[in-house]
Parts: sequence; structure tokens; C-alpha cells
Amino acid sequence: MALIVQKFGGSSVADIERIQNVARRVARTVAAGNQVVVVLSAMGDTTDDLIALARQLTPYPSEREMDMLMSTGEQQSVALLAIALQSMGYKAVSLTGEQAGIRTDRVYSRAKILSIDSVRLERELASGKVVIVTGFQGVDSLGEIHTLGRGGSDTSGVALAIGLNADFCEIYTDVDGVYTADPRIVPQAHKLAEISFDEMLEMSSLGAGVLQPRSVEVAKTFNMPICVRSSFNDNEGTMVKEEVDMKQLEREVLVSGVAYDGDVVKVTVYGVPDRPGIASELFGALADAKINVDMIIQSGHKDGKNDISFTCGKEADGKLEEILEPVVEQLAAEHFSLADDVAKVSIVGAGMITNPGVAAKMFKCLYDNGFNIDMISTSEIKVSCILQKEGAKDAVRALHDSFGL
Amino acid sequence: MALIVQKFGGSSVADIERIQNVARRVARTVAAGNQVVVVLSAMGDTTDDLIALARQLTPYPSEREMDMLMSTGEQQSVALLAIALQSMGYKAVSLTGEQAGIRTDRVYSRAKILSIDSVRLERELASGKVVIVTGFQGVDSLGEIHTLGRGGSDTSGVALAIGLNADFCEIYTDVDGVYTADPRIVPQAHKLAEISFDEMLEMSSLGAGVLQPRSVEVAKTFNMPICVRSSFNDNEGTMVKEEVDMKQLEREVLVSGVAYDGDVVKVTVYGVPDRPGIASELFGALADAKINVDMIIQSGHKDGKNDISFTCGKEADGKLEEILEPVVEQLAAEHFSLADDVAKVSIVGAGMITNPGVAAKMFKCLYDNGFNIDMISTSEIKVSCILQKEGAKDAVRALHDSFGL
Repeated sequence: MALIVQKFGGSSVADIERIQNVARRVARTVAAGNQVVVVLSAMGDTTDDLIALARQLTPYPSEREMDMLMSTGEQQSVALLAIALQSMGYKAVSLTGEQAGIRTDRVYSRAKILSIDSVRLERELASGKVVIVTGFQGVDSLGEIHTLGRGGSDTSGVALAIGLNADFCEIYTDVDGVYTADPRIVPQAHKLAEISFDEMLEMSSLGAGVLQPRSVEVAKTFNMPICVRSSFNDNEGTMVKEEVDMKQLEREVLVSGVAYDGDVVKVTVYGVPDRPGIASELFGALADAKINVDMIIQSGHKDGKNDISFTCGKEADGKLEEILEPVVEQLAAEHFSLADDVAKVSIVGAGMITNPGVAAKMFKCLYDNGFNIDMISTSEIKVSCILQKEGAKDAVRALHDSFGL
Repeated sequence: MALIVQKFGGSSVADIERIQNVARRVARTVAAGNQVVVVLSAMGDTTDDLIALARQLTPYPSEREMDMLMSTGEQQSVALLAIALQSMGYKAVSLTGEQAGIRTDRVYSRAKILSIDSVRLERELASGKVVIVTGFQGVDSLGEIHTLGRGGSDTSGVALAIGLNADFCEIYTDVDGVYTADPRIVPQAHKLAEISFDEMLEMSSLGAGVLQPRSVEVAKTFNMPICVRSSFNDNEGTMVKEEVDMKQLEREVLVSGVAYDGDVVKVTVYGVPDRPGIASELFGALADAKINVDMIIQSGHKDGKNDISFTCGKEADGKLEEILEPVVEQLAAEHFSLADDVAKVSIVGAGMITNPGVAAKMFKCLYDNGFNIDMISTSEIKVSCILQKEGAKDAVRALHDSFGL
């Protein structure tokens, strides 16, 4: 008998029929002799609808009240799933984040989970129930409700799996696993049976959706395997875990996948005086505005001045100018430019570490296919290039071919 | 500076515009120098919509899960009102039943409030905030969510007023006070400035909606004045309180109002053997089925047998036959009949206690106007008669005239 945490996203519980589908899937897992904890998001567009209601009152509702408001969405879906399972003859109970012992820090709208007090969860499981927990939320030590922000429900699932010492955490999405590239871009992309936490982290960060990097980080830290599966079919998913099967490395699969991210803004600050503390001032201002900066490149200096380029997500687009203008003036830099006609194409693979020449092969492939590389950033298991957006998806296809995926 | 609890029902917060209206009313009360605690129901049809969702899964969802589901409605409305007040520049915070310290017993779907732990409420008030609390719900000592059942939100308002030692509790509805009769039946009915708890209790029980009897009982026990007002205008409401103004009694207003209840089913069980325990068996079976029985009349016995008549609310109609059939057989009674073509007409007034002849005047008025009285029930401050439904509203008008209201 295994203890399995199954997490379903909002599209999997968008209406009563889909909730019944989820109930049947959970029931099958129970019938196979497993204990099951289910973590749910809010039904379909519920969260967006609640946000829209609040925005009718003010464009900037308080985060504390938004957490009160939005946490109701998951509470509705867990109660409905409990009712669905009970109507099928299964014992089930729904729990709020608080009842499930999910303790967070005190940051509204993007709280982090501090701990899981699993006493009640274990009692309910021991009594033979399916336990259904609200994703995306928890309470702080004062009983205040906090939502976990983007990717929170995946993180709830992984955290509960860790807190309960579950065998693994299944995350159900609308795709049936992790692919070597986005199948919408590369039709011959294929599903990976396994992928390591680090590779998955890079893939996630690089725009290959499926899992939020945050939940993978937590899973990696506590070595909790995640199985990514589709809620719409019974296909085997992709197992994200510490050690990938040695066979796979022996087949010399250096590159596990190619990722594409079209939601990138490239910023260049020209003529920045070359003195200590400059980078700290520039990126400190961006961090204060909660803008996640991704790739950073500083060119060699000339006449005591540097050009600094960096990329960030498109959601920062509207705020960048007003943040950068005073900073650029303060730094006595010359000027800055923004470009959103760029895309990030990356290759990811644990095999790269011990195999020189993978990056070179990527650059050659791009050159052979006529792409001009604008920025490069590397880690031990990935190489990312910023290209002109036009045609960048062709680059993904070319790389997928070139690395024989 | 007064501390006032203001309770608004679902129709008062049915959409964003009405929530803003409520916010403006609360703001006026604050601007006048008062501390305000607001208690809200769920927006408009939210509760019904949630029930309908659950019913798509099963006709009999578990009460525990229904409480989880339905309690989200109030959590949404309080968060939205907090956001509305904040956007107008007022300090406000919304609290769940749990956060507001509303402790209930462990009965799902119709819990009773056991206590109010007002520590947090008082802290928030002291910091200058409007505190907005979810009506209709609380938690038990295990942290389980319970709804309070019908009339629960009014009771939440009164209980919070008591727990905080507020000056009074305003209950906003769609009528602007308590009338001498339903103005839809008696156009010349007028609004009462004051009414005693006992009179209000009888009026409520007798179908003169406005306040749920339950909240009036609690208010009476703790002597917490209730002001019934309309959320759609600024008219003075009706004050429900312990002592009515002596002037009113001196004007010999013996009868405060006439009530009409058309949602009545009359049951007669014929030929019930006259032995001890019969009434207990019959009404025990009805109580087990959670049917509230109102008037009970046992006629004088004849040949060792009685006829027993009683009335109950129309919501029991569908269940009565299947409950009564086995009981009637078990009691060895002859048969039973149901009649729903009846109505209950009542007069209510604290002045009756010390003034004989009020009941007689009522019977004479009904006789003079050609009405046949089917059942009679009296208390110290009311007389109720069951009449044929046809024309019963004319009886209300005749009584309103006859008692000079």
C-alpha cells in the first residue's frame, strides 16, 4: 500500500462533470489499495472571476483581503470533490489549508509554506478516508489566511507529500508528461519517462510550463519524486526524481530537451560608469520592484564605461521604464533600451556537465540555420540563447533535430 | 461614541454596486463617530447556487461538506466589503467566523453559537478599523466549520453585539421596519417605532418575516436592542427592545400588530386511542424528522378515542405522509388528513396580558365578517386562529381595522 498525493489543477475541476472524473480517478487509486491525499485548485476561472469582482471596486485591492477572497475558490472545489467521492460510496473529508496544518509565513498573496502539522491529516487517513486539501493556501501563526501565489497549488501538493512522507506526488495537468520540446512547436517531440530535478528545474524556468519551478525546488530539497500526468487520459507520465536511470545516460542522451520562451523582454543599459556597486544599485532597484531578472551580461569595458544587458519576464514590461529612468540617471549611465521582439531558446540536460562541446554544437546548429545569437547564458546543465523572436521556433525544431531527440 | 453592529442580508450585497452602497452606509456611521462591526450574508443567490452545484452530485450531500462549501459565500462578501471600504479611505478588515472568535457547537448545518471570543475583534476595533465578519457560521473547538442554518446571519449579528457589549444591533432588510400588518395585505398598515422582544418573537413566529425568531430570542435573553431598518433608504427603523415606551401602553394599544401566515399545513389524526404516551409517540416521530409543529389541539375524548390536530410549516408537506403513515398505524389511530388550504391569522400585543376580552374581540370580529374559525391557539401576548385560506387576508384587514391600528 502506497501513500500518494494527487494534485489536480483548475481545468481538471472546472465543472461538475470534471469533478466526477477526478473522483473516479481518485477512487481507482484507492481501489488499487493506496491511501490518497488530494490537493485541488479552484474550479476553472473562479480565481480570475473573484479577482475581476475585486477590481470593480479598486484597481489595487489589499493583498490581505484578496487572500481572504481567493482562498474560497479552493474551499469550494475540495468540498464538492468530497461530496462526489461520498456519493460514490467512498469515505472522504475536505480540509482547508488551516485544518490540514499548512502553516505559512506572514506574506500575503505569495506566502511560503513553513511547515505541515500532519496530525489531523494522519488521523483522517488512518480512519480510511480520502483527504482532500485546498491547494494554494495556508494560515500563519495568527490564523490569517495566505495564498501561495503563482504555482502555489503544485507546491501545496509537494509539501503535503513531504509532510506525510508519501511515496510520491502526482501532479495532473493538461499534458501527459514532460516532452523533449513543446509538441506545438516540434511535432516529433517525445515524452520523457524520467527527468532529474535539476533538468526539470531548468526546463520549468526556461518556459517549458508543466511544473512550476518552485514546487520542483521543494521536491528536490526533500527528494520527493513527482509524477507529471494528464488528468484527461491514463497515459504513464514523466517521473521527476533525483537519479535518472543510468541506461539513459549510457545512451549518451546529453540533452534532454529544448525549451522555448517567447515572453521575454531584453533591456540594455548603455554607457554605465565602471565603478564598484553599480550592479548592486541597478539590480537592487529591480529587486525592490519584485522584478525577476533572468540572464545578465556585462560587456567588457571601454573608456571606463560598460554596457549591461539583462532579460526579464514580459509581466515586468509595463513597470520597467518608470523603474529604470531614475536609476539610469542616478548611475550616470547614457541611456537604456527595451526590446520585446526576442525569445529565449535553451537546451537542457544533465549529460552536459561531463561532455564538453554541447554548447558549441548548439551555437553551430544555430549558425548553420541562419540565426544570430544576441545573448548567451549557461549553467552546468543548460545553455540559453536570446534570438530574434521571428523564426525562433524554427530554431527549436532545428536544435531538436540536431541533438537527435 | 457608540459601538454598533450592522448586519446586512444577501440582497443588500447582491452585486458590486450594492456592496458599495453598504460601504457608504457603514462609512456614514463611522464618520458620525461610531465604532462599527459589520456582519454579512453571502452575495445574493450565492448560497443557492452552491447548493445547486452540490445537488448535481447527489441529492443528499453530507452536511459537514455542505458547511465547508456554503461558508465560502460569506467569506467572499466580507472580503469585498473590506476592499470597498479601503478604496474609500477607511481602515477595514474582514474576518472569518473562526477569526472573529465565533465558537459553535458541533452540529453541522444548524449549529448554535456557544460563545464569542472577542479578543481579536476588540484589537481590530481599537486600531480604528471597521471589522467585517462572516455571518451564518463559526467553528467548533476542533476547528470544524459549521453554518448556523436558517436565520443564522441575524443571530451572528446579535451574538457579536452581545459579545462586544455593543450599544445595539442594526439589522438591515428590504423593509424599513416592523409594521402593524403586512403592507401588501393591509395598505394602511403603519410602521411601529418600537416593539418589545416578546411581541417581536410572536410576530416573527407568526409569519411576519423581518426578523428570525432565533435572533430575537438571543437578543431578549441578553437584552440587546435590535433596530430593524431598510438597506435601501434612510428611514428610521423599528427598535426591538425590552421595555416599550410607557406612552404607547397608556394609549391603550393592546394589539401591536396583525400577522398572516399562508404557508401552513393542518394535520388531523382521527380516532387516536386515549392512552398515555400517545402524544409523545406522535410528536416524537415528527421531531425526529425535524418537523417543527406549531399549534396542537386535542379535542375532548369520546369512546376512549381522541382527534388530534396540529399545524406545521409548508416545507414539511412532502414528508408528512410517509412519516405519519407508520406512526398512525402503530398508534392504532383510525386515519389522518392533510389540509393546506388554510391560513393562520394572529394578533400580537403585550397589552393583552392585563386586558381581558382581546381574544373575544378578535373572535367577534371574525364572526361579524363571516369567517369560520378552525383552530385557536393563545399565549400571553398573542391569539392565533386557523381559517380557510380563501379570504383570510380580508380577515387580516378586518382585524387591523377593528383594533384601530
